[in-house]
Amino acid sequence: MGKSPLHAMRYFDPGPGVRKIAAELYESVKKLPIISPHGHVEPWILAENKPFPDPVELIITRDHYLFTMLYSRGIPLESLGIPTRDGTPVEPDPRKIWQTFADHYYLFSGTPTGAWLSYEFSEVFGISEKLSGKNAMLIYDQLTEKLQRPEFLPRALYEQFNIEVLSTTDRATDSLEHHRAILDSGWNGRVIPGFRPDSLIHITREGWKQELDALSAVSGVEINSYKSFLHAIEERRTFFKSMGATSTDHDVFNPFTHQLTAAEAEDIFLRALHGRATGEDGDLFHAHMLMEMARMSVEDGLVMQIHCGVLRNHNKVLFDRFGPDAGSDFPVQTEFTKNLQELLNRFGNDRRFTLIVFTLDESTYSRELAPLAGHYPAMKLGPAWWFNDSIEGITRFRRQVTETAGIYNTVGFNDDTRAFPSIPARHDLSRRVDSNFLAGMVARHMIDMSDARNMSRALAYDLAKKSYKL
Amino acid sequence: MGKSPLHAMRYFDPGPGVRKIAAELYESVKKLPIISPHGHVEPWILAENKPFPDPVELIITRDHYLFTMLYSRGIPLESLGIPTRDGTPVEPDPRKIWQTFADHYYLFSGTPTGAWLSYEFSEVFGISEKLSGKNAMLIYDQLTEKLQRPEFLPRALYEQFNIEVLSTTDRATDSLEHHRAILDSGWNGRVIPGFRPDSLIHITREGWKQELDALSAVSGVEINSYKSFLHAIEERRTFFKSMGATSTDHDVFNPFTHQLTAAEAEDIFLRALHGRATGEDGDLFHAHMLMEMARMSVEDGLVMQIHCGVLRNHNKVLFDRFGPDAGSDFPVQTEFTKNLQELLNRFGNDRRFTLIVFTLDESTYSRELAPLAGHYPAMKLGPAWWFNDSIEGITRFRRQVTETAGIYNTVGFNDDTRAFPSIPARHDLSRRVDSNFLAGMVARHMIDMSDARNMSRALAYDLAKKSYKL
Amino acid sequence: MGKSPLHAMRYFDPGPGVRKIAAELYESVKKLPIISPHGHVEPWILAENKPFPDPVELIITRDHYLFTMLYSRGIPLESLGIPTRDGTPVEPDPRKIWQTFADHYYLFSGTPTGAWLSYEFSEVFGISEKLSGKNAMLIYDQLTEKLQRPEFLPRALYEQFNIEVLSTTDRATDSLEHHRAILDSGWNGRVIPGFRPDSLIHITREGWKQELDALSAVSGVEINSYKSFLHAIEERRTFFKSMGATSTDHDVFNPFTHQLTAAEAEDIFLRALHGRATGEDGDLFHAHMLMEMARMSVEDGLVMQIHCGVLRNHNKVLFDRFGPDAGSDFPVQTEFTKNLQELLNRFGNDRRFTLIVFTLDESTYSRELAPLAGHYPAMKLGPAWWFNDSIEGITRFRRQVTETAGIYNTVGFNDDTRAFPSIPARHDLSRRVDSNFLAGMVARHMIDMSDARNMSRALAYDLAKKSYKL
Repeated sequence: MGKSPLHAMRYFDPGPGVRKIAAELYESVKKLPIISPHGHVEPWILAENKPFPDPVELIITRDHYLFTMLYSRGIPLESLGIPTRDGTPVEPDPRKIWQTFADHYYLFSGTPTGAWLSYEFSEVFGISEKLSGKNAMLIYDQLTEKLQRPEFLPRALYEQFNIEVLSTTDRATDSLEHHRAILDSGWNGRVIPGFRPDSLIHITREGWKQELDALSAVSGVEINSYKSFLHAIEERRTFFKSMGATSTDHDVFNPFTHQLTAAEAEDIFLRALHGRATGEDGDLFHAHMLMEMARMSVEDGLVMQIHCGVLRNHNKVLFDRFGPDAGSDFPVQTEFTKNLQELLNRFGNDRRFTLIVFTLDESTYSRELAPLAGHYPAMKLGPAWWFNDSIEGITRFRRQVTETAGIYNTVGFNDDTRAFPSIPARHDLSRRVDSNFLAGMVARHMIDMSDARNMSRALAYDLAKKSYKL
Repeated sequence: MGKSPLHAMRYFDPGPGVRKIAAELYESVKKLPIISPHGHVEPWILAENKPFPDPVELIITRDHYLFTMLYSRGIPLESLGIPTRDGTPVEPDPRKIWQTFADHYYLFSGTPTGAWLSYEFSEVFGISEKLSGKNAMLIYDQLTEKLQRPEFLPRALYEQFNIEVLSTTDRATDSLEHHRAILDSGWNGRVIPGFRPDSLIHITREGWKQELDALSAVSGVEINSYKSFLHAIEERRTFFKSMGATSTDHDVFNPFTHQLTAAEAEDIFLRALHGRATGEDGDLFHAHMLMEMARMSVEDGLVMQIHCGVLRNHNKVLFDRFGPDAGSDFPVQTEFTKNLQELLNRFGNDRRFTLIVFTLDESTYSRELAPLAGHYPAMKLGPAWWFNDSIEGITRFRRQVTETAGIYNTVGFNDDTRAFPSIPARHDLSRRVDSNFLAGMVARHMIDMSDARNMSRALAYDLAKKSYKL
Repeated sequence: MGKSPLHAMRYFDPGPGVRKIAAELYESVKKLPIISPHGHVEPWILAENKPFPDPVELIITRDHYLFTMLYSRGIPLESLGIPTRDGTPVEPDPRKIWQTFADHYYLFSGTPTGAWLSYEFSEVFGISEKLSGKNAMLIYDQLTEKLQRPEFLPRALYEQFNIEVLSTTDRATDSLEHHRAILDSGWNGRVIPGFRPDSLIHITREGWKQELDALSAVSGVEINSYKSFLHAIEERRTFFKSMGATSTDHDVFNPFTHQLTAAEAEDIFLRALHGRATGEDGDLFHAHMLMEMARMSVEDGLVMQIHCGVLRNHNKVLFDRFGPDAGSDFPVQTEFTKNLQELLNRFGNDRRFTLIVFTLDESTYSRELAPLAGHYPAMKLGPAWWFNDSIEGITRFRRQVTETAGIYNTVGFNDDTRAFPSIPARHDLSRRVDSNFLAGMVARHMIDMSDARNMSRALAYDLAKKSYKL
C-alpha cells in the first residue's frame, strides 16, 4: 500500500488554531476500537465469510445512498444492476456498471458518500488514484484481485477494521441462524442482533397477519389475543437477549405515545385479527405499543431506539419495480415534545430505562430534543442520522444540541450502514468531525484541553459502549 | 472611475487558507456572462431604452427590499414617494426622498441590500464615497448627471453588465408587446418572457373572471369549459415559447398536488364560472392545475418553477394604500415531502421534465428538499431565495443541501430582481459566496481544486444555462 | 483577587483576523453599564439586602438550568435540596449538596451554564481554581466566607455589577411591596417591576377565580363583568407604571391573536365566571386579550413582550413534587406569520406601540420573525432566549436575523435570569459573542469598523435602553 492520497488534516477547520488541536484530539482516538451499536450489515456475510463476489456487489448494489445520487442525475437503476422484483431485466455486466459509476464519480464531490468512498479505496483497498471514467477498468481489476485474497474476507476485514462489537438489525421473527452460526464458529468477532419488531406493531399494514403467523411459529406461542401477542413478543426479546442483543429499534413515522387500557388494546387487536382495524386503530395501537416496548425495556434492560419521521417508498414506480430501500424514503416534519410526553412521564424518570431518539428533522435539535434529553434521565440523543451523517450534518448536530444537552446525554456514533466496507470510513469521519468540533471549543476557550480529551474519547468510544450496555 | 472602495476579498472567510482559494475560484468565474433565468425587470425598460428619470426612481421606488427596511424604522412610505393607489399624496420631491434615504443608510449595514447598493454605487456608477446624510445631495447630483449619459441607458447597462440572457416574468395573458418590440428593434440583447399563469389558476380570487376574459381575448379561444380553459392555456404557452420563453413560474402558497378526474375538474371549473366555487374547490383545483402544468411541461419542454410558501399582502393597511409588492409578503412553514408526492410520482421520474423548487422555509432544506432533489431525476433546487439571497443565506443553503443533493441537482443563481442596476451586484455576491463555500471544502480537503473549479463554473454559469435550457 | 483564569480572548473566533477586531469591539463596550430590561430576580433580595445564606442557595437551588442538567444524568433533585411541595424530605446539608454538584461539574463543559459559573467563580468571587470533587469543600468555605462580607451583599453586588436598571417580572396582582421598600430605602439602585398578567388571562386554568379575587382586592374594582375586568387591569397597569414599570410580559403558548366583539368577550367572560368556559373559549379569550393588551400598550406606552411556545410542567412527576420551574418546560413549534396577523394589522403600523417577540423555535428566525420585524414599525425581536442564550445560540440568532431585520429591529440583550450573581456573566458573554459576530462581518468586509463600533454599542447598551424606554 503506497502513501495515502487522503490528507492527514482532512475535515478539520483550516485555521491553524483549531486544526492543531483537532489533530491532537483525533490522534488520541483514531485507533480506539470501533463500537458499532446499530447498523444494517447482513449477518450472513460474516457467518459465511466468503469473498465478496465483485466490486459492484461490494460497493454499489447495497448502497442506496450511492445509487440514488446516480438515479437523480438520470441514470436508470436497471443500468446499475439493482435487482428488480418485477422481472425487468437489468444490466448483467458488472464491468459496464462499474464504468457507468466511474463516469459519474464527480457527482459525489463534497458528499459524505464521496468521502467514505475515498477512504475505502485508499485505506481499505490501497488504491491511491481517484476513480474516473479513464481508470475505471484498471481499478475494477485491482479491486477484483484483492477481493480474492484472504485478508479481504469479511471476518478478516472485521478484524482489520478493529471492530469490537457490531450490532445488526433483525426482524423480531428472525431465527437468528446466522448469529448462531457465528457464535458456533468459534470466531472471536462479536456480532449481535438488534430486535426490530416494526412489522408486528403496524397492524394495518399489508402482510401483518403473515408476520403474526411467523411470530407464532418462532415463539411457540399461539397468538389469539392481545395478551398472547405481548407474551410472544416478550419471548422473542428474551431470545434475542440470549443471543447477545442489547437493544431494540423502531421505525416510527410519528412518535405519538399513548397508553391504552388492556381492554382497549385487546379490542383493537381483535379487530386487526379479523382484518377490520381502521387507520385510527392502527395509530392508537402503535402509540400504545411504544409504551409497551418501553415497559418491556424497563423490565428486560434492552435499550430502546426510535428512528423517527421517515415516509418510506415515496416513489411508487421505483418501489413496484425494486422494492423497499431503493432510495426513495424521505423525511417529514416531526414533533417530539407533545408526542413523547406520555411515554416520558411514565418511564422517562426511570434510570433503568434508556430511550435513544433519532431524527431527520434538524429543526427539533435545539427546540425539542436537546431540552428533553437535557432533562429526562432515560432519554438520550442518537447521533446525526442518515442524510445528516456527514461533515456539516454532524457539526450542526453538535452545535445545536451540546449547549443544552451536553455531550453526555448523547450516545456517540452509529454507522448505521448496510455497506460493510464503509464502516471504518464512517467512524473515521465522525471521529475527525467530533474532534474538530471540540477543538473549536478549545480554541474559543469554552473548554480546556483536559475536558476536550475526555469528551473526545467519550464521543469516539465510551458513550456508545455505555449507552448501549456493550 | 477611481479606485473601487470595495475590498477585493469581500465576503470571503478571513482566514488566509480559505481566502486564497476563494479568491482564485472567484477570479476564474467573475467575468463569465450573466445568465438571469428568472427575474422581475420590466421589459418596457429595455424596449423603450430611455434614460432612468432620477436616482430615486432607479434605486428606491422599485425596490421593496429597500423601502420596507426604512418603513420598519418608522419612515412612512409616503415620504419615500412610493405611489399610492388610493390617492393619498406622497412626497413629490426626489431630492427630499433621497435625503431621507441617505440619512438612514446605516440601517443597511450588514444586509444584502447594503452590499448590493455599495456595488451599484461603486462599480456601476463609479461613486467611491459611502452615502450619508452629509453627502446625499452631492451623490444625488452625480447620479443624475450620469443617468443622462448614453452609457447609462438600459441597453448600454445590459451590455456593460455582460448579460447573456435575461428572463422576465409575465402574466399568461400579457401581449408580450415589449418583448416583441425588443425583438423587432434589431438589438442583440436576449430578453425572454417567463410564463406566469397564477391569476388564471386561483379560481376563487377576486378578478378571476376578468382574467379569464383576458385569456379568451388574447388566445382567441372561447372559454366555456375546463377543456377550453386548458386549451387556451396551452395556446398561450405555445405563444410564450415562440417568443423565447423556456420556463413557467408559479407562486404556490401550499405545494399540494393532486390529480382530479376530468369530470371533477370540469365540475369545479363550472362552479367557478358561475361564481359558486368554494375555498376547498379552489384548493383542489390549484393542486390539480399544478399536475396539469407539469404535464404540459413534459409535453412542451418548458421548465416549471414553483416559488412556495408566501402569505402575500399581510399588512392590509399598506395593501389598501399601496397595492401589492409593498413589502408585506411573509413566509410560512411549508411541507414538500407529502405535498409533492403525487406530482413527483407521476412526472418526477421523467427526464423530459424539470421542476425547480424554491422555498423560504429553510427547515426544509436538509429535511425535505435535498433528499427529494437527490432522488427524483426531474426535481432540482432553486437557489436561496428572497430573504435568504444573502451572504449567510446562500451559505446556509449550500451547507444544508450539498451533502445530500450535490451541486448538480441545483440550478446556479437567480437574481430574481425588479431592480435592474442591482443585477451585476447580485451575481457578483453570489459568485463570491459560492466560491468561498467551495474554498471551505477545498481547505478542509473534502474536494480537490480541480473539482472546485468545475463546481465553481457550474454554479456561476453552466447550471443556470443548462437547467433553464438557455 | 489573583489573576483571572478566564482567557481574555474567550468566545472569540480563533483566527487572528476576527479575534483582533472582536477584542477591540468588546473592549469598547465591556464597561458599559448593564441594562437588564427583563429578568426574574426576586425583588425582596434587594429590598432586604441580607447576606446570601450559603453557596447552595446562591448558586444551585434557584437555577433550573443548572439542576436540570444534573437531574438528566441521574441525580435526584431531592439530593440537591430542591424544596418539595409534597413534603418529600430533601438533603438538608448544603455541604453534601455542594459536593454532589462539584463531583458532576464536568457535565457543564461546553454549556452556557458552565461559562457563566466560571465567570461567577472567578470574576465575582475571585476563585481561580476550577471546581472539582477534590476542591469542593475548599471552595465552599471560600464562598461562605465571602458571602458574609459587606461587599457581597445584594446591593453591593448590584453596584459592583454596574447595573443601571433591573426589571423584575411580577404578577399583575402583586402589591409591589418590595419595590416600594427599595424606593423608600433611599438606595440609588433602579429596580423596576414588569407587569405579567398571565394568570388573569388564562380563564380556564385552575385558580383563575382566586386570581380574579386578588385582582379585585388590589385594584379596588369589583369585577363582575368583562368591562370591569378590563378596567381593573388598566388600573393595575397604571399602578405598575407609577412604580417605574416600562413593560409588560406574556407567556404565550400559541401567539394566536383575534379581536372579539365586546359582546363576545363579555359572553365568554361570564361563562368563565360561572366556571362554564370551554377550552375553545379559553383560546379565543386569550387571543382577544393579546389584542387588548396591545391596545392598552398603545395607550399607556408600556412595551409589550411575548415569550412564545413553551409547554410548561411537562414532567408531571416532578411538577407534583417540586411545583413549577423545576426544569421541565419544553419548547414546541410556533407559528407567527398567520397568528400575529390580526394584531400587527391593527397595531403594528402604530409607532407608539412596541411589541417584542421571543421564541425558542429557531426555524422561525429567518422564515417569519426577521421578515415581520423587518417590516412592521412596532415589532422588534427579543434576543436569543433561554436554551438559545448561549455562544452558539446567540450566534445563530444574529446570523439568521441580521440580514433581513438588521440589528436596529432587535432589542439588545436580556439576561432573563433568576440567578442574581449570574447577571454580569451573562451580559459579558453576550457582549463577547455579539462583538465576535460583528468582527466576522468586518473581517469579511461586509461592514466597516465605524459601523461595527456603533452596532456594538447598540447591541450592548443603546438598543435595550431605547426599546424598553429606560
